[in-house]
Amino acid sequence: MSGSASACTEGEGLLVMGAQDRNFACSNSGHLLAAGKRVRWKDAASDLDFPPVPFPSDRVFAVAGEPRLRALVLRHHERLRESSVGHLFARDPIRFAAGVERVADFIVEATGGPTRYTLLNGPSCMRTQHFPFTIDEQARDVWLTQMLLALDDVGFPDEIRREFWNWVEAMSIRMINRRTMRAQPNRYPWPEAPIKLRPLMTASPRPVMCPR
Amino acid sequence: MSGSASACTEGEGLLVMGAQDRNFACSNSGHLLAAGKRVRWKDAASDLDFPPVPFPSDRVFAVAGEPRLRALVLRHHERLRESSVGHLFARDPIRFAAGVERVADFIVEATGGPTRYTLLNGPSCMRTQHFPFTIDEQARDVWLTQMLLALDDVGFPDEIRREFWNWVEAMSIRMINRRTMRAQPNRYPWPEAPIKLRPLMTASPRPVMCPR
Repeated sequence: MSGSASACTEGEGLLVMGAQDRNFACSNSGHLLAAGKRVRWKDAASDLDFPPVPFPSDRVFAVAGEPRLRALVLRHHERLRESSVGHLFARDPIRFAAGVERVADFIVEATGGPTRYTLLNGPSCMRTQHFPFTIDEQARDVWLTQMLLALDDVGFPDEIRREFWNWVEAMSIRMINRRTMRAQPNRYPWPEAPIKLRPLMTASPRPVMCPR
Repeated sequence: MSGSASACTEGEGLLVMGAQDRNFACSNSGHLLAAGKRVRWKDAASDLDFPPVPFPSDRVFAVAGEPRLRALVLRHHERLRESSVGHLFARDPIRFAAGVERVADFIVEATGGPTRYTLLNGPSCMRTQHFPFTIDEQARDVWLTQMLLALDDVGFPDEIRREFWNWVEAMSIRMINRRTMRAQPNRYPWPEAPIKLRPLMTASPRPVMCPR
């Protein structure tokens, strides 16, 4: 986000859009606006690419074990609650704990453990279930950064980090539902992820976006 | 949006996501969550398709004339300001008028009139310039509905409605930056648009989405 956009206030849209946001990157300069004698077609395109997602084998559950996977999800959510996306998570401790348990059920089942998530919740539909919550590219980066730190917090076994990480790294792109840039989201494959995400580990709070 | 999502409150995320939003459509039921012996790849996909955009010929400007095009943009924005997306537009009358003038410059140039927009603003970059403002599929429908009504308000010539409309209908998809559903946005090609958009002309205010 540009600095000027972060300073916008509700109801000031028409001014902000044109006058102050020239520093947004623009990839449209090849298209002349002025009309000619004929209709001109601008090509089809697509916005957000979802890369393939490597769902893990049951080796992840076998090596990590259920207690460590559940501890990972709890630490991750404790970290998220204190992060710049903390407003997306329940303040009420009962609700927070229930949410953590459901996510842990998901992670446990998807890595080869008991199928409690599906039994209790049905098909997972992760993207659809996240639609009520505004998740932009930067929120995904925060989510991944806190996951990386949580892996260390719980001593996640080195031999399954790549398989686990490359799953959540790719899957997390599908949770993005608010675009703030033309470029595709950043990729953080293992083993480069800790280096690429390091700047985010000490980042100051994100700039505020314009309200809807 | 589901009714339950519209009732969510900030900080209640973890509960709302899992327990109450079962009525979101889900297209993921073919994918078993439980892990097996091997890594399983979920296929690549993309989120939002941008269809080709038929930029108008200069016949639109020649037939409509600059005063009517400017009146159209003003009526459209007066309507938008009073609509369910009114918060996106400046309340201050000076800023509102400046914004309307800039959009009118854009419409005039793109339909074959003077190139004032590009002279004053440079390349148009419409999608990028809308990033600070949360625009979902429903906001686009409102924008189109109010445009349709504004065409009538200013007596827009019948013989150029199709060419003008099919441009803005396709272009407006590229302004969507907040997804709230898996399906692609609705299409409203001319001449079906007035019939397809009729239910929206008398719609009650939209349900409130969860805050970010």
